[in-house]
Parts: sequence; structure tokens; C-alpha cells
Amino acid sequence: MSGHNIDKERLEKQMAFIQEIDKEKQIFRQTYVSDATRKENDAEHAWHMAVMAFLLKEYANEEIDVLHTMQMILIHDVVEIDAGDTYAYDEVAKETQREREEKAAARLFGMLPEEQAKEMLALWEEFEAGETPEARFARALDNVQPMMLNAATDGKAWVEHQVAVSKVLKRNERTPRGSEVLWEYGSKNYIEKHVKLGHIIDDRNNSSIDDKNEL
Amino acid sequence: MSGHNIDKERLEKQMAFIQEIDKEKQIFRQTYVSDATRKENDAEHAWHMAVMAFLLKEYANEEIDVLHTMQMILIHDVVEIDAGDTYAYDEVAKETQREREEKAAARLFGMLPEEQAKEMLALWEEFEAGETPEARFARALDNVQPMMLNAATDGKAWVEHQVAVSKVLKRNERTPRGSEVLWEYGSKNYIEKHVKLGHIIDDRNNSSIDDKNEL
Repeated sequence: MSGHNIDKERLEKQMAFIQEIDKEKQIFRQTYVSDATRKENDAEHAWHMAVMAFLLKEYANEEIDVLHTMQMILIHDVVEIDAGDTYAYDEVAKETQREREEKAAARLFGMLPEEQAKEMLALWEEFEAGETPEARFARALDNVQPMMLNAATDGKAWVEHQVAVSKVLKRNERTPRGSEVLWEYGSKNYIEKHVKLGHIIDDRNNSSIDDKNEL
Repeated sequence: MSGHNIDKERLEKQMAFIQEIDKEKQIFRQTYVSDATRKENDAEHAWHMAVMAFLLKEYANEEIDVLHTMQMILIHDVVEIDAGDTYAYDEVAKETQREREEKAAARLFGMLPEEQAKEMLALWEEFEAGETPEARFARALDNVQPMMLNAATDGKAWVEHQVAVSKVLKRNERTPRGSEVLWEYGSKNYIEKHVKLGHIIDDRNNSSIDDKNEL
């Protein structure tokens, strides 16, 4: 490929977007990194998930296109540069999440040349919808990765937020749709283990009482 | 894929490796993130390069397998968990770098099931050798990404280390082999611009004097 035929404006748009998404390294999540010294950021989370995508692809429920899955994973949190990280158990923030993120997607992906902007927007929408085999697997990893780190840090984020197991299970409702194997592994080694250790509040007896009261 | 036929030991090895590489988030490089508040770590660097790989693939000199390139990129710095980051312009550390990194690769990739360990080791070796189209492009990105961040931070890392342009050019000797277009863009917009701004020491007049003396 020779320099003579390069569309300079196109390359400048691409480089401007690439520099802009550097900001994802400053969007911090609630999860701690495994030595528990600090919280993890979105760029690190995406890197970790992308490695998981190719090392654990055999556990996807359905055959997946690994490249497509990795691309989706690598850009799935770009919108948080403008919209911020919405903690999985923050019900108030979650109400406005979609609107904030759509605006962010339009601005950020809109920095790219048109066909790449469309491609990135489509990847993000696919992840959000979670209806393709690739998106289902990517979303399973999006849940299993922080679960692994929470477990590695004696449940630090779970304890700080006094998270109840009913909420963890609710959040993971769709995890087995991406990977039954990873869900089975995670629910046993991460969730139930840390319920037993008291790092996740076990509210299941309460809800069964509630259920009975409703009868 | 059903839980019944799962090789538990295999999955545990994979998850142990995935948790171990979380440590890459604590390996800090000399480059600053774009708001210059702190240095970048290896996981963030790999994420950024992986996004660049698919957004800039059209600028690879040769046709590349994008998935293969991304996998190589995502794991290319795993060895630094044990071997540490070797600054590109630290000539003393570079002498022992290869030996330290080979030992690290054996231990870290060796945590995986055998065929995946071999696959990861081969990806790392391919990146190191830099002789395939994918490795040449990946290594070009490995140079262009920090160059972009140094430029974005008023040459902060260049200034701190009083880097001379001859060293930057030497480091980038092979960058055009991966992408002539990105080399052309980077040398103009990042390197020469910051030589003019005084952020990179221009030692080229000196070396031309030396050349004359040798005649």
C-alpha cells in the first residue's frame, strides 16, 4: 500500500477516534483488580474479556465467530467515556443509562469514517441486544470476568456494596444463554462459594418467605 | 455444549491462567495516558493496539489475518508479569530481556492446557521474531501507539527520558515494514513535530558531523 493514494482525511478521523478512546482507561468500574489495590478500568476489563474470548471459545453454547466476538468486546464500553460506568446494581442510574449511552455512541463512533462508524455502532448495538451467538457469549464473559475478580479479592466489591445473591442471580439470568459451562463454573466457584463465605448476602430464604406470603 | 462432558481440570487451568494475567494491569510502561495523569499499563496498551489492529488493518503493507494479529497483540506483553517492562531506551535492561522473558513465557503459558500453551507460546514467538505480515503489522502498532500517546501528552515521556531522535528512529527501523502509511503518518505528525517542539532532542546534526570525521 503506497502513501500516494492515502485518503488523509480518513486516516486523521481514524487516528482522532483512536486517541479519543484512550479516555476509556480512566473510566473505573466497581470491580477491583486481583491484588485488590485499586479498581479496574474499562480498557483493562475489555482486554481481559478479549483474551477470555479466544481461550474459552470452546465453551460458547453455539459456534461463534471469534474475531467478531472480540471486536464487539473491545469496543463494548467505549460509550462509557461520555456516559460513565453504570454499576450493575445501581437502579437509579440504570434508568437513564440507555439514553446516555446512545448519545455517547453517536458522538464517539461518529468520529470515524462513515462506514466504520456504522460498523462500530452495529457491533455495540449487537452487544447490547445480546441476541446473536457472539453477543450472548460476549455478555456471558462480561459477567464472568468481574465475578472472577470479585472472588479473587475476597468478594471486596460485593461486600462494599452489600450485594444480595438474588441480585447477582438476576444480573446473570442470561449468562447461561452464552455459556452453560462458564455459568456452571462461575455460579459454583464464585457465587455460591462467596455466599457461604458471607461475602454475598443470602436473601434466598427471605424471598421464599415472601413467596409464601404472596400465596 | 453440556456440563456433563467438561474436562474440569482443563477449565481450571484455563481459569487459573486468566486470573494470573490480571497482573498485567499492574505492569506500568513509560508512556503516559492521554490526560498525562499517570502511566499506562500493559493491559491498556494491548487493548488499545487490538482496537487499532481492526480499525487500521487497511494500512498493513500486506494482507493480514486480523484475528491472528489481535490474538498476538493481546498476549504479547504477558511475559512482563514476571520479566517486568523493559523500557525501549534502557540498553542495560535490554541485554537480559530475552532470557527473562523466555523464562516468564514458559511459566505463564505453561499454566494452560498443553495445546493452548503451545499456541500462545507460538503467538508470542511470532510477535518477537516479527517476520510474518501479522507480526510486522502488530509491531508497527506497538511503536505507533506509544508515539501517539507521547505526542498527545506534549512529549512527556520523551522529555522525561531526554530521548534523542536517532534513538526513536532506530527503534522504529522496522515500523515501515509493517505499515508504510502509519510510519509516514507517525514520523510526520508525532516524531518530526515533537522534534520541532523541542520534546525530542535532535542529534542528527551531531551524527552528520561524526560521519564527516570518519571520512
